[in-house]
Amino acid sequence: MPTSSTSPASRADAQRNREAILAAGLQVLSHRPDASLAEVARACGLTRTTVYAHFANREQLLEALVQRAMETTVHTLQGSDPDQGPADEALLRVIAASWHEVATFGPLLETGSAVLGDRVPELHAPLVDLLRALVRRGRREKTFRRDVPEAWLLSTYFALVHAAGHDVAAGTLAADKAEQALQRTLLGAFGVTR
Amino acid sequence: MPTSSTSPASRADAQRNREAILAAGLQVLSHRPDASLAEVARACGLTRTTVYAHFANREQLLEALVQRAMETTVHTLQGSDPDQGPADEALLRVIAASWHEVATFGPLLETGSAVLGDRVPELHAPLVDLLRALVRRGRREKTFRRDVPEAWLLSTYFALVHAAGHDVAAGTLAADKAEQALQRTLLGAFGVTR
Repeated sequence: MPTSSTSPASRADAQRNREAILAAGLQVLSHRPDASLAEVARACGLTRTTVYAHFANREQLLEALVQRAMETTVHTLQGSDPDQGPADEALLRVIAASWHEVATFGPLLETGSAVLGDRVPELHAPLVDLLRALVRRGRREKTFRRDVPEAWLLSTYFALVHAAGHDVAAGTLAADKAEQALQRTLLGAFGVTR
Repeated sequence: MPTSSTSPASRADAQRNREAILAAGLQVLSHRPDASLAEVARACGLTRTTVYAHFANREQLLEALVQRAMETTVHTLQGSDPDQGPADEALLRVIAASWHEVATFGPLLETGSAVLGDRVPELHAPLVDLLRALVRRGRREKTFRRDVPEAWLLSTYFALVHAAGHDVAAGTLAADKAEQALQRTLLGAFGVTR
């Protein structure tokens, strides 16, 4: 526990500090993968001692960030009802609801992979599982192509979502065109002809 | 020039050493982006002095490697006659001829981007230009989709080729299935229905 006191006010303070560290950590580590905990402390205006009371090292902060990113993305994705209606329409909803969130977490995942190694696929699994269920359903219903491996359709999904995020950040793809471009190329890659 | 002597034998030696350094550099820097010139020297069995006579620093070696990678890929790609016949068939030939080469150079390009910065798009340009010409022709002939930006189809191409290379290296996509999987999803993403 980050503080030795257990009064409600201290607990609320500790929780607020933890959120501030996570928010600053996401910002700082997504843009500068090599940033230290001291830089994260500076970015959120807390002392290094406070930051270290919550996260003993960079690895612990990265793990908490990746876990948080996955939880919020899974929550968003589930909110788009991926198991309802025709699979191609579900895919369009899933992209609309979550592509930007998934793309935003791309740089964090890359930093995380270098530091956390084997832990990343494990942390990533709930999101991959949700998409795999949709891909599997679409193939069973013969809406999505079955002439390539299932895992390749999942790779295609993540590769294109991250590419769109990269292109929007780099200014080579207009933000207001990205969602539709992604939807069209992904449906096509998945073998859906509309 | 790497040696002060200009005898034919010395020039042949220097050329052979340069090739050995480039081959070792590609291997070492693709797998360990942080590797030093000293490690490259060890990998090719030359002295550090010899390596430094050819490349004053890591940046110069990386630039030579990226340039070489682009030249060989452009050469391979041109050999598949991207400007002949229907654009969709040309795309299938281009993928078959060059995807593995493009995928292999992915990690090198990532390392290069961090060190060379703005020089990378410039070095990458001849390859992008070749593919842009094919994408443009396919859209003009109404074989490829026109309802997404041209640049997005190029990003889609590189994102999927690099993803296939990654998956084959990681063992999650069988090497003998990768080419066909790529061809099918890329044609679909490009809006070709066969």
